[in-house]
Amino acid sequence: MQVDGKEMRPIWPSEDMKTVQVIDQRQLPHELVVADLKNLDDIIEAIQEMYVRGAPLIGATAAWGVYLIVTTAPEGEISNEYLNRECDRLKAARPTAVNLAWAVDRIRPKILAAENREAKIETARREAEAIVEFEADNCRRIGEHGLPLIREISERKNGSTVHILTHCNAGWLACVEFGTATAPMYAAHEAGIDIHIWVDETRPLNQGARLTAWELGKAGIKHTVITDNAGGHLMQHGLVDLVITGTDRTTHTGDVANKIGTYLKALAAKDNGIPFYVALPSSTFDWRMRDGVAEIPIEERNPDEVRFIQGRDDSGAVRRVLVPPADSPAGNYAFDVTPARLVTGFITERGVCGANEQDIRRLFPDEN
Amino acid sequence: MQVDGKEMRPIWPSEDMKTVQVIDQRQLPHELVVADLKNLDDIIEAIQEMYVRGAPLIGATAAWGVYLIVTTAPEGEISNEYLNRECDRLKAARPTAVNLAWAVDRIRPKILAAENREAKIETARREAEAIVEFEADNCRRIGEHGLPLIREISERKNGSTVHILTHCNAGWLACVEFGTATAPMYAAHEAGIDIHIWVDETRPLNQGARLTAWELGKAGIKHTVITDNAGGHLMQHGLVDLVITGTDRTTHTGDVANKIGTYLKALAAKDNGIPFYVALPSSTFDWRMRDGVAEIPIEERNPDEVRFIQGRDDSGAVRRVLVPPADSPAGNYAFDVTPARLVTGFITERGVCGANEQDIRRLFPDEN
Repeated sequence: MQVDGKEMRPIWPSEDMKTVQVIDQRQLPHELVVADLKNLDDIIEAIQEMYVRGAPLIGATAAWGVYLIVTTAPEGEISNEYLNRECDRLKAARPTAVNLAWAVDRIRPKILAAENREAKIETARREAEAIVEFEADNCRRIGEHGLPLIREISERKNGSTVHILTHCNAGWLACVEFGTATAPMYAAHEAGIDIHIWVDETRPLNQGARLTAWELGKAGIKHTVITDNAGGHLMQHGLVDLVITGTDRTTHTGDVANKIGTYLKALAAKDNGIPFYVALPSSTFDWRMRDGVAEIPIEERNPDEVRFIQGRDDSGAVRRVLVPPADSPAGNYAFDVTPARLVTGFITERGVCGANEQDIRRLFPDEN
Repeated sequence: MQVDGKEMRPIWPSEDMKTVQVIDQRQLPHELVVADLKNLDDIIEAIQEMYVRGAPLIGATAAWGVYLIVTTAPEGEISNEYLNRECDRLKAARPTAVNLAWAVDRIRPKILAAENREAKIETARREAEAIVEFEADNCRRIGEHGLPLIREISERKNGSTVHILTHCNAGWLACVEFGTATAPMYAAHEAGIDIHIWVDETRPLNQGARLTAWELGKAGIKHTVITDNAGGHLMQHGLVDLVITGTDRTTHTGDVANKIGTYLKALAAKDNGIPFYVALPSSTFDWRMRDGVAEIPIEERNPDEVRFIQGRDDSGAVRRVLVPPADSPAGNYAFDVTPARLVTGFITERGVCGANEQDIRRLFPDEN
């Protein structure tokens, strides 16, 4: 994607193919810092410390991690025992990240099977590139399939601005290119449709204010940062035409786990008759779970993420400040589940479908 | 209320009756700073710069402001022209604050009518004290009438913890004593009922995290600060028994204007069958407006309140940090309106009533 006139992705191999480079997303939006990952330890740190976040990007980072396992292996032939041990160490970096395990398990048998060091390196490189392009292509298709939804609203409004609300960051920073929730927005902007995005700041980690606003600003797309509290009021007053969010996991019955607070926006959209869409690659569907609220485990994270807020101080330094009393406890629930009854539909790489088992199965008959 | 073993209110006259002292609430929770207000200019600054906030406290501050107008008037007899000019200047400090005008207009004719300087000073002091005690008494009654709601839940749960969610600060810091939304909580705690409060941090100004958490901590009431995004998830999982908020203005048909985000919590409470109560003195009812969403004007405040967050840095200094990109616009809607259909009932100084015109009129037949 375009950043200050330069084409950029959140991850890429260095020119000499010796290291992997990522945008250190913890420093955005105030600094664009590129981190140089030299070996598996660096990759694990980047995943655990959230230099990189978002399911597809974690998968892509893991894929390049397998590549570094092979290229940095001790001299001589590389044993399967060594490769297996290091791949397992990579998989353990963030046990709940489905895409991490998926990427490692996809590449591992192929490098184990490759004949010698050179072939293993070549295989790992090719597979990492393939995973990255696969994610980028999925997002491109999500954009294509979401575009008509926005175009239709634009036509109904005789070309006046289409106001879209989004929560958290399901943008290219999370997904290599285009993003999921943002893909239809980029496609609409590219198609010359007049859009404006309401960006929920998305407490506690402010991914909306920090990352989505940064992405949209770099793309020249009109946007306004709002508190997570504001969306309901905007919807009551006709200032939102459409909501699009991403998702971390969606049951095949249509229940959507996404960043905490998504459920509240879905309730407000329903209450005001505003379409609420969720954009996702089909890899995010969970084909086993039926009841999202009852079954999807919700991660509780460090309360300090709620208590402390990071930003740029008046001197330009990035630092954190404590908001509540030092001795008040805080709770940090990372996700919530939006029941299918509140979701208008899903925008996937194969097209748009309703938020129910029948419609989802019709689009993905090959899954089980 | 008790603060570190000392009885305290947010406003009081100094011992020599020459100045008015207030807690500078901008510095809470990290510092308890008492500001010494010496004259009308100081009073106006305290109101405009939000040393004091909350409708009842603004009324009380205005009342003591009239007292300072009289005590600091130039030597000699005080002309009505002088008093009227200064009272008008006080009323203009925050034109939308209903209680400010109410307090000034209640005291003004009495000091105009008083015979001489001494009588005017005595009248102003007596009236200011009466307004403060009137607000405190209303809140005490709100606590008494709200207590049975909490007790009933406690009994139904066989004495296990009653979890109450609140939004913003409708506590004693806003209301002289007890608060409105917090009054039933203080009453329940006093009565030995086991309660725990979920405190919405309440972006953008974090009155929940900064003020409500501080109040509850000082009172020894169990509480947990959460993001404004978290309430829906907690309700879905049976972790909230009751919601109580305050209100800035409520139509006599039951529509509730309160801090932005209240509407989203009311939607979630409705969706999960959780009682949603609003606590208010009857002076907050608007006896003219019928349709809150359409008619109540919603203040838009400085976007910097969304962009910058204030807190204590690691060195102990209170400072602000910028969260979104410096060039991203922000929107700052201060209030929203919760339609009566989402409100279970009102807790007032006269008792509890349903959120509809008939019930409200039955409790307040003397209003029109």
